Amino acid sequence: MRSNLLSRLISPRVAVFPKGFFHSSPSMAHSKFEYVRSFESKDSLLPNTWLVVRIDGRGFHAFSNEHDFEKPNDVRALNLMNAAAKVVIEAFTDTVLAYGQSDEYSFVFRRNTNLYSRRSAKIATNVTSLFAANYVYLWPQFFPDKPLKVAPSFDGRCVCYPTDANLRDYLSWRQADCHINNLYNTVFWALVLKGGLTNREAQERLKGTLSGDKNEILFSQFQINYNQEAQQFRKGSTLLKKKAPVPVEIPQDKKEDSPKRQKENSGFRDRVKIFDLNIDLIGDDFWKENAHIYSF
Amino acid sequence: MRSNLLSRLISPRVAVFPKGFFHSSPSMAHSKFEYVRSFESKDSLLPNTWLVVRIDGRGFHAFSNEHDFEKPNDVRALNLMNAAAKVVIEAFTDTVLAYGQSDEYSFVFRRNTNLYSRRSAKIATNVTSLFAANYVYLWPQFFPDKPLKVAPSFDGRCVCYPTDANLRDYLSWRQADCHINNLYNTVFWALVLKGGLTNREAQERLKGTLSGDKNEILFSQFQINYNQEAQQFRKGSTLLKKKAPVPVEIPQDKKEDSPKRQKENSGFRDRVKIFDLNIDLIGDDFWKENAHIYSF
Amino acid sequence: MRSNLLSRLISPRVAVFPKGFFHSSPSMAHSKFEYVRSFESKDSLLPNTWLVVRIDGRGFHAFSNEHDFEKPNDVRALNLMNAAAKVVIEAFTDTVLAYGQSDEYSFVFRRNTNLYSRRSAKIATNVTSLFAANYVYLWPQFFPDKPLKVAPSFDGRCVCYPTDANLRDYLSWRQADCHINNLYNTVFWALVLKGGLTNREAQERLKGTLSGDKNEILFSQFQINYNQEAQQFRKGSTLLKKKAPVPVEIPQDKKEDSPKRQKENSGFRDRVKIFDLNIDLIGDDFWKENAHIYSF
Amino acid sequence: MRSNLLSRLISPRVAVFPKGFFHSSPSMAHSKFEYVRSFESKDSLLPNTWLVVRIDGRGFHAFSNEHDFEKPNDVRALNLMNAAAKVVIEAFTDTVLAYGQSDEYSFVFRRNTNLYSRRSAKIATNVTSLFAANYVYLWPQFFPDKPLKVAPSFDGRCVCYPTDANLRDYLSWRQADCHINNLYNTVFWALVLKGGLTNREAQERLKGTLSGDKNEILFSQFQINYNQEAQQFRKGSTLLKKKAPVPVEIPQDKKEDSPKRQKENSGFRDRVKIFDLNIDLIGDDFWKENAHIYSF
Repeated sequence: MRSNLLSRLISPRVAVFPKGFFHSSPSMAHSKFEYVRSFESKDSLLPNTWLVVRIDGRGFHAFSNEHDFEKPNDVRALNLMNAAAKVVIEAFTDTVLAYGQSDEYSFVFRRNTNLYSRRSAKIATNVTSLFAANYVYLWPQFFPDKPLKVAPSFDGRCVCYPTDANLRDYLSWRQADCHINNLYNTVFWALVLKGGLTNREAQERLKGTLSGDKNEILFSQFQINYNQEAQQFRKGSTLLKKKAPVPVEIPQDKKEDSPKRQKENSGFRDRVKIFDLNIDLIGDDFWKENAHIYSF
Repeated sequence: MRSNLLSRLISPRVAVFPKGFFHSSPSMAHSKFEYVRSFESKDSLLPNTWLVVRIDGRGFHAFSNEHDFEKPNDVRALNLMNAAAKVVIEAFTDTVLAYGQSDEYSFVFRRNTNLYSRRSAKIATNVTSLFAANYVYLWPQFFPDKPLKVAPSFDGRCVCYPTDANLRDYLSWRQADCHINNLYNTVFWALVLKGGLTNREAQERLKGTLSGDKNEILFSQFQINYNQEAQQFRKGSTLLKKKAPVPVEIPQDKKEDSPKRQKENSGFRDRVKIFDLNIDLIGDDFWKENAHIYSF
Repeated sequence: MRSNLLSRLISPRVAVFPKGFFHSSPSMAHSKFEYVRSFESKDSLLPNTWLVVRIDGRGFHAFSNEHDFEKPNDVRALNLMNAAAKVVIEAFTDTVLAYGQSDEYSFVFRRNTNLYSRRSAKIATNVTSLFAANYVYLWPQFFPDKPLKVAPSFDGRCVCYPTDANLRDYLSWRQADCHINNLYNTVFWALVLKGGLTNREAQERLKGTLSGDKNEILFSQFQINYNQEAQQFRKGSTLLKKKAPVPVEIPQDKKEDSPKRQKENSGFRDRVKIFDLNIDLIGDDFWKENAHIYSF
Repeated sequence: MRSNLLSRLISPRVAVFPKGFFHSSPSMAHSKFEYVRSFESKDSLLPNTWLVVRIDGRGFHAFSNEHDFEKPNDVRALNLMNAAAKVVIEAFTDTVLAYGQSDEYSFVFRRNTNLYSRRSAKIATNVTSLFAANYVYLWPQFFPDKPLKVAPSFDGRCVCYPTDANLRDYLSWRQADCHINNLYNTVFWALVLKGGLTNREAQERLKGTLSGDKNEILFSQFQINYNQEAQQFRKGSTLLKKKAPVPVEIPQDKKEDSPKRQKENSGFRDRVKIFDLNIDLIGDDFWKENAHIYSF
């Protein structure tokens, strides 16, 4: 039911008393100033391109310290990110998937979306503010024992990707970034929390090290096999929309209505469901199994 | 103290572990995908122009119904808007004033601001999401008895105004809009709530009426003198930054330090304060009294 | 040889004394003003998209009257357009084809071109001004008996097309436009020049007529079978780049150099040649035969 | 009379048979493809700002070598630039002045111009191509003995300046650039042409020298007082529009028509004239004497 209300809020359909409705009454004052509208720029994004909105927490290092987030990863904080992202992709029906890691999330809209006539600022601000508002709204569900001290902000941007390959490379870029950062953070906090180094010493220790070096430090010094760390930390979170059969109740009198209803009559109907995954997006497997993304 | 934390979050200064810091380690995978960055567009706004961010509630008609806002104006909802706006202009030190009415707010940045290198999306999303997050965060202070049912989103846009006159005309446009909408809503809801008309009948009754007609209906039918309605409803809310002397405590041993400290020694220091006003912005008076805005 | 000079002019390589070279000498005056540079906007076009520059004659109706162009089509004027376009696609090596009709020409750059870092204004102005300058330069070759009375200008714009299908549809749009305009003009001028109608009468006569009606008028009233009109008029001109073997002279002593040279040794080498065609671009045939366009 | 034709060509008024006029006849093919129009971006420039179009020769070092331009300055080439620029500011009535030096020219449009709805690409390409076309068209007038070997191209860009001070600083920037380049070139070519140095030697000789050093070399080694070099070389060329009385012939029978005609009756009428100046734009004098520029 909440999601119905949400859809009504997000929907570009006009409200009962749309702005501008009242303006029919002539007003010299009004028309005299209205020219300032012409200073607003048109910022429509190129049609027929994958549209990605990436949002990113502002000052989340300070924010996570202030709220004593666990290092290197705070599961509750990550799950809160996922929950807020889920509201966003439920509200914006033209999204096909979302990918999140750390304090950032990327929302992928199907290439032929015409949301808000593809106006860049309108899309970016609505997505970003809906996410931020829900981050605060859902906080108590994930941190019932820890009051929120300050409401965070996020920045957001729209980026267009012309081909399916470009979109895949974008997501690979973010997931590779997740891997690199998480490996670094895992070693860094092991050195600090278990190895007794100061932040600065840990930083120095890691300067110039390659992935192999970091894996080696983790294993030899802390008996941590990086590849056995949680997938959620190493791969980030993918929220994927996919049609799946859901049970449906059909009133007795409609049961034999039409041949089209046969599937429903069998007790199931296809519905878009959201799957929360922690899997590899860089290889081909995910894309072979989910080719429906391309033609959503 | 919260506002200190807030400043740290908003500040474009780098965090202790900035993104990108970890990328020094060579990574084939990483560099291979990083080209997708070049698809992000540069969107710097023209320098030396007044920069206005206007945000606007999405689907607030449904939102206000859902939360039983009082008609035609809900003071608590308006005050919540003001409170969220106040956080925004405290956080963004380059703002000089903000103007709000109904479910919208305009934030005016000084013309020489270089916030986020004047990147349009970055400014619009940060302002809009900080506002939305605080709308949710501050809700319980204004509606202690009424739980928030859904987190709202806002859209936002950056607009540049080259001259002081253009900026004044912009604010006049919004205040004229406030007047027109509020007059309409005041009569409309009088007809519905006191006159017993349906929404549709009230709409029909007002079709084609001029301001004078509406004033007349209010007065003759409901004994309401529109000009005696609350200024907050008729004029909207202006949050104005202005330097004002604040009392200062000086340690005994620093008292005769330097001639520069004379004012402080007298027990006061100039600090930027935020004034919450409900006044006319269209005439000259406000601008004569607050000429400091132009050179903030 | 001219085309060598041309390449040097167009090439983004720096000249011997590039602008800015001389600026090493410190100059207070200079640095004081240089901030104005920051007012120039970045206008890079989305990477990996087909880039089309369409130019269009300004006021060519008046221009063609002034120079007594033949109606409905002046072959010499069309050939002059083609000649100027040929200079453009020779100079800009990243073009793959160009399509022209009436007083407009579209230049298609391969999707991965990085010409001028894909800066929109730079590309549009260079292409348009090179075309305009050559239109004047080549005029005497096509109108030896008719002095140019005034130098024309053209407007130009860059448009990005994300997919091959979008590019084809763009070219189909222009060719359909060519057909519609040419059919109209052919009947219109038949009515005026052969039928003795005034311009206004001809316009009235054609109001509301469909393609079939126009064909019928041409045939029954003037014995013109539209489908036998020149392809150049009905289809417009396509300048296509394609590799073709050109005879090559090889010095005797290099003949048995290497296996790579076998083809050259046979007396031919593949070179990009420009073909001037008047064919259908809407159907599949052209694109099947010239699939090299996609991967130029 | 030519300028009348020119105005008709440039004017945004529709021609007798505007494009699109013929499209009233329904065409499936046409409408099916027309969607590609939506890929064109809206690029309107911010209203109420000074609009400058700066054009710049492409590869003019090679071009000037090819045509044996005199070093360091070729008066005929500079005068040709001025002549082409004059056509541009005659054609575009919203220009107020133009400033040129070397192979570049800046055209200043009054801040409230609405030319082509302030569409950036349209303005930039029309100005640039009109200039380039006239550069070729007028070439024989300035180089009667020297045939043009190749038609040059120019790049152009639109830049907006919000305040009068920004506009002045822009022009000061270009004039300071003129000074710096011309001083360098004057010494450089003196060293090469009179001093017998090679290009490379001259370059080495000047590396790291300040303005004073260059003046000293000129004076002590070549007896050249730089301040006595031609103003055209040192200051560049300013084409200024200004109203000036022009003699007017009045038919006898209209002489006593109305009081408004008194000035005309005296035999003069105010007309916009173009003055070709070589003066300082950096100091205040020019701007005091030509304050009409601000309110053209």
